[in-house]
Amino acid sequence: MENNILRDLVQKNSSRIVLLVIDGLGGLPINGKTELEAAKTPNLDRLASKGSCGLSEAVAPGITPGSGPAHLALFGYDPIKYQIGRGVLEALGIGEELEPSDLAARGNFANIDEEGIITDRRAGRISTARNKELCVLLQKKISALEEVKLSFKAVKEHRCVVLLKGKDLVEGISDTDPQKEGEKTKEAIPLIKEAKKTASLVNKLTKRINEVLKGEASANTVLLRGISKIPHLPSFQEKYLLRSACIATYPMYRGLAKLVGMEILPTGETIKDEIETLKENFQNYDFFYLHIKKGDSYGEDGNFEKKVFVIEEVDTFIPEIEQLHPDVLVITGDHSTPSLLKGHSWHPNPFLLLSKNCLPDNLSNFSERSCCQGSLGKFPATQAMVLMLANSLRLKKFGA
Amino acid sequence: MENNILRDLVQKNSSRIVLLVIDGLGGLPINGKTELEAAKTPNLDRLASKGSCGLSEAVAPGITPGSGPAHLALFGYDPIKYQIGRGVLEALGIGEELEPSDLAARGNFANIDEEGIITDRRAGRISTARNKELCVLLQKKISALEEVKLSFKAVKEHRCVVLLKGKDLVEGISDTDPQKEGEKTKEAIPLIKEAKKTASLVNKLTKRINEVLKGEASANTVLLRGISKIPHLPSFQEKYLLRSACIATYPMYRGLAKLVGMEILPTGETIKDEIETLKENFQNYDFFYLHIKKGDSYGEDGNFEKKVFVIEEVDTFIPEIEQLHPDVLVITGDHSTPSLLKGHSWHPNPFLLLSKNCLPDNLSNFSERSCCQGSLGKFPATQAMVLMLANSLRLKKFGA
Repeated sequence: MENNILRDLVQKNSSRIVLLVIDGLGGLPINGKTELEAAKTPNLDRLASKGSCGLSEAVAPGITPGSGPAHLALFGYDPIKYQIGRGVLEALGIGEELEPSDLAARGNFANIDEEGIITDRRAGRISTARNKELCVLLQKKISALEEVKLSFKAVKEHRCVVLLKGKDLVEGISDTDPQKEGEKTKEAIPLIKEAKKTASLVNKLTKRINEVLKGEASANTVLLRGISKIPHLPSFQEKYLLRSACIATYPMYRGLAKLVGMEILPTGETIKDEIETLKENFQNYDFFYLHIKKGDSYGEDGNFEKKVFVIEEVDTFIPEIEQLHPDVLVITGDHSTPSLLKGHSWHPNPFLLLSKNCLPDNLSNFSERSCCQGSLGKFPATQAMVLMLANSLRLKKFGA
Repeated sequence: MENNILRDLVQKNSSRIVLLVIDGLGGLPINGKTELEAAKTPNLDRLASKGSCGLSEAVAPGITPGSGPAHLALFGYDPIKYQIGRGVLEALGIGEELEPSDLAARGNFANIDEEGIITDRRAGRISTARNKELCVLLQKKISALEEVKLSFKAVKEHRCVVLLKGKDLVEGISDTDPQKEGEKTKEAIPLIKEAKKTASLVNKLTKRINEVLKGEASANTVLLRGISKIPHLPSFQEKYLLRSACIATYPMYRGLAKLVGMEILPTGETIKDEIETLKENFQNYDFFYLHIKKGDSYGEDGNFEKKVFVIEEVDTFIPEIEQLHPDVLVITGDHSTPSLLKGHSWHPNPFLLLSKNCLPDNLSNFSERSCCQGSLGKFPATQAMVLMLANSLRLKKFGA
């Protein structure tokens, strides 16, 4: 749906929408059943009979989405138009708050030899503890460069984030990480004319890092990639006239929600905590994005049983969500993560929409294969928000 | 999927993909069953239960594709963006090998009266034998014109191909065939400035042809249309990093495969020959396009029973393909050719994809109507290659 058409149709009302995202929900069969089929989900199955079902696709058929594009699509933003740089995503993942003028780079602690040739792109996967020590050292020695404030933040093992805060930082420079061993670190090159000064700054930074880390046995350089700013996205308030809130236990998802202007509600670590947060805030917002992480995590581990368990756990909380009487409840995944593949996959997401204005599909259960038979068909995930707005009667008629 | 995005995602591995195209596979019911439903296909039905099914559409809903656009779509090229001229398609159909600098024109032997008015656009559908004689005569008398080498090639009845080989030939001139009787042959007009010289050459050619054929009772002119060059298409190697091979018994399909950079494997006349060729070459390529012509031919004849027979014959060879253990096997048509309509039609193609990474749809048989229930849904045929690449794990994740 084009933004300018949607803008003319959208209207406010007092309805409440809940978008429950079970990360990596979709799966593939092992012994004949997918995780969702194997799970005992009396509540989800009951909703599948009362709701409209379908299969949503984040980017395009056959394309496996990362978490960034998968969420942007569900939020109604074209994930090809709005690409989020690796540096920004990594920064969001550790809970960093970025200003639109900041640059974020994903860094790898790495080893180079005396001639500058990369011998190990991951510095032997140094420990996270050692990573933190090196970040403290770099922070102490290089807190700024030419009036640009620098921050070095440890992620896991060899991964770090470098944040650049200052005036006139321009996005559009190439990586210094050649993504190969046996080569030298690359010069950052301006990909657009305006980025010349920023590229030069990043090259000076690499030089300074090498000076500081010289002689360090564990890692003596940092390779940078995905040097990026947060993309400008019209907010949920602008685009949908929705006061929206995010309930998520993992920083990256809170960061993604913040990009689209959602308020981030403090919550605990468990699904129960998240449901409590939903209940406490239910009167204060129009739209809730509720994110359950563990489905994806166990899928990535190839742990079929534990993924089944997470889905069953979510199922037990469904009645509590129902008792809040949201006008629209959508239950879906951002992407599939079959335990069989131990990673994200291209398979479309089971999608369930419940409202008093939807066509009940009378399906007997909620699964990848039953959703094939649903009235929503297979559709781009970017259309999900429009369906939610329609079902909450927040869209006027198009034309007379 | 946009080419530049696909290019960033595609990667090589050792998987094998087989695309089996049963030309004109889809049909319409006569006495309640389509050809595919009436055929006994125990092997295809078994695969339909293990694979993911759907319906693919070559150009757009309701649009009946020719063989050129139908194949380009299956190969992943937008058939509206890449249009193949009539002259080129006709030349490929008789096995002519075209260089990118060659022009090919479809010709009609025709009759004109003394004032140049066309009295019969098909010269009374002269015999193919007579057509050949006239081509030999023209070839002898007009082997070249202004350093452009000419070839006259008989097709069937009144149809011929005129090939122009030379420097500086430009595509973009109008037809000389007015497609109407009672009018004069048209002047070829340059549709772009650069084609002025080529248009003038074609007009001289018409004049020369008329001089040579003057007084011939059967046909005394040739009307030209679709004067075209082969379109530039990025090859399978460039686009998908696939070493690809074509196994087809008919020249046109070999020609189409060559346009996208496939290697053409010599084969015999029967399905058995084609399967043998597949077996012999299975270790040497990543991707095989295997084309079965007869489904379409019998559909065009309105011969329901023989089309059923071809489908049943293909079915008996399925186990031999399975024994090769391709990582991805797709079985579909390029377009539908219902015997009922005696021609190509707009109905979408039954599509079956088998891989160990697909969601098995548990369908009870392979047919137009069962494919409606499949998890792939109805989708543009241009997405088929992306699905094959995904299922062979040849695509990286999009975004992080």
